[in-house]
Amino acid sequence: MTYKVITISREFGSAGRTIGRQLADELGIKCYDREIIGEVAERSGLAESYIESKGEDSSQGRFSSMLGRGYYQGMTNEDQIWQIQSGIIKELADKESCVIVGRCADYILKDRDDVLKVFVHADIEKRAKRIVEVYGETAEKPLKRLKDKDKQRRAYYQIYTEIEWGDARNYEVCLDSGELGIDTCVQILKTIVKGTE
Amino acid sequence: MTYKVITISREFGSAGRTIGRQLADELGIKCYDREIIGEVAERSGLAESYIESKGEDSSQGRFSSMLGRGYYQGMTNEDQIWQIQSGIIKELADKESCVIVGRCADYILKDRDDVLKVFVHADIEKRAKRIVEVYGETAEKPLKRLKDKDKQRRAYYQIYTEIEWGDARNYEVCLDSGELGIDTCVQILKTIVKGTE
Repeated sequence: MTYKVITISREFGSAGRTIGRQLADELGIKCYDREIIGEVAERSGLAESYIESKGEDSSQGRFSSMLGRGYYQGMTNEDQIWQIQSGIIKELADKESCVIVGRCADYILKDRDDVLKVFVHADIEKRAKRIVEVYGETAEKPLKRLKDKDKQRRAYYQIYTEIEWGDARNYEVCLDSGELGIDTCVQILKTIVKGTE
Repeated sequence: MTYKVITISREFGSAGRTIGRQLADELGIKCYDREIIGEVAERSGLAESYIESKGEDSSQGRFSSMLGRGYYQGMTNEDQIWQIQSGIIKELADKESCVIVGRCADYILKDRDDVLKVFVHADIEKRAKRIVEVYGETAEKPLKRLKDKDKQRRAYYQIYTEIEWGDARNYEVCLDSGELGIDTCVQILKTIVKGTE
């Protein structure tokens, strides 16, 4: 098996993005994360901040829209964003070897057999420490913020995919970055990708 | 972090036992699996086959016993087996560096911080192929047998532990042995254990 694309699904504050970037650097490939939002903005005409607010960290989505407006009224902005984003992720996977962080890329690329699906998680206390240190989170209590984020991402997966977010069976590899450390996680993933080339 | 003990929880047919044995061989430590049943038999006076029938692949357990006999009637054989087995696993972890396959060792040793908790899984089609090849399973249709086993192990975890069997967040590492291959899984785990010594 040769893995062309590595998708990293991650709990907020678990360093999934950092692991993705380091892995991409070491493999000499690109890492896509927020860049995808820019491209969605370009294609949809919607503002990046608006797109972000309707993404995986949104507590809204197709479900709440459906409740609010009746089922047959057509696509919401959330649905449109989902569709454009899915298209972009599929194009990226066709075009080049890359790492894609978040954005349900694991689900969107589920029919390809050259995708290494990774889930990165960590104990909530360690994630709280990290978001204070790295992002300087101060606006809210970090534990509450993490619990809200976890809930939002889980809900987003439930609404847009058939995947139970964080069920090990949906990924080739799941790693506890808080226990193993960022560098070990990167090395494990690199070993898998290089070893299966 | 130095990992003294590696627990391997696994789906039936996912080669978790083989990975455990190979890892133990490469690390020069012991691997405990069925040996624990022998020791439970020794201490309880119950037959090994009986103990096995009441273990993690049993569809019975504390819950069904409770239903059948009223709550306050004392320990069932299942409870006694659980208690003795837990004691043995704790003793093993105290005594020596080792690999322990199955038997809810991840939960039993949850208060130790020197335990690397691993979950091994694989696609059901690949597991079916494996149990036919390795164990020569012919008595039942392999897919049905696997579904029953999955259900039993999940139920056993629900009854005896607080752990959602297969939720990535309960383990430091989860590996899809069907995709990654047995040797790669062993190498990943060895890298983690050696790298953190």
